[in-house]
Amino acid sequence: MASTPADVKEYPNSYIFIIDMPGLKSGDIKVAVEDENVLVISGERKREEAKEGEKYVRMERRIGKFMRKFVLPENANIDKISAACEDGVLSVTVEKLPPPEPKKPRTIEIRVG
Amino acid sequence: MASTPADVKEYPNSYIFIIDMPGLKSGDIKVAVEDENVLVISGERKREEAKEGEKYVRMERRIGKFMRKFVLPENANIDKISAACEDGVLSVTVEKLPPPEPKKPRTIEIRVG
Repeated sequence: MASTPADVKEYPNSYIFIIDMPGLKSGDIKVAVEDENVLVISGERKREEAKEGEKYVRMERRIGKFMRKFVLPENANIDKISAACEDGVLSVTVEKLPPPEPKKPRTIEIRVG
Repeated sequence: MASTPADVKEYPNSYIFIIDMPGLKSGDIKVAVEDENVLVISGERKREEAKEGEKYVRMERRIGKFMRKFVLPENANIDKISAACEDGVLSVTVEKLPPPEPKKPRTIEIRVG
């Protein structure tokens, strides 16, 4: 199970996970949330079957299954996750939950003793 | 100057150089032949400029200039090289020169002494 490099960026309203996946198409990649707060990105790069008269002179590119897991921050909205793949780079956007409403100041009445 | 993994395949009539270039578009990549028989593939992956309110939480993906050089075999036809980029993977096809014509059998006349 190979790893693949990733960047993570934080924006005011979202997190973006950017992962190199050269040679993979959207259909080869799976994006899921496990255990309520773990973003799991997995896929498989297969080597094309050798055609007749074809032989490998050099073979450096990694193939096989890979997986990346990221523990999502508390304010990640796991119902608002989207993913897009372009030029072999996958971007997964996870929106943030709105911050909790600030507690209203409470006025404590002072009883007259 | 970073390296990037490559496969090289040989076919009956061509060689194909396959190089991972996630995030690069055709315009970011240069393919050239130097010194008559060296295939030079170079490019640059730039990190996008930070937008307002953006910050990196994790930064593993390599950026910067990269280059790969391959000494071409003698039978490579450097006038017939083509390149295509798909899903962050560059494929450079170098056709082979036709094999030299087999030498015709020479008949040596035998002089009558």
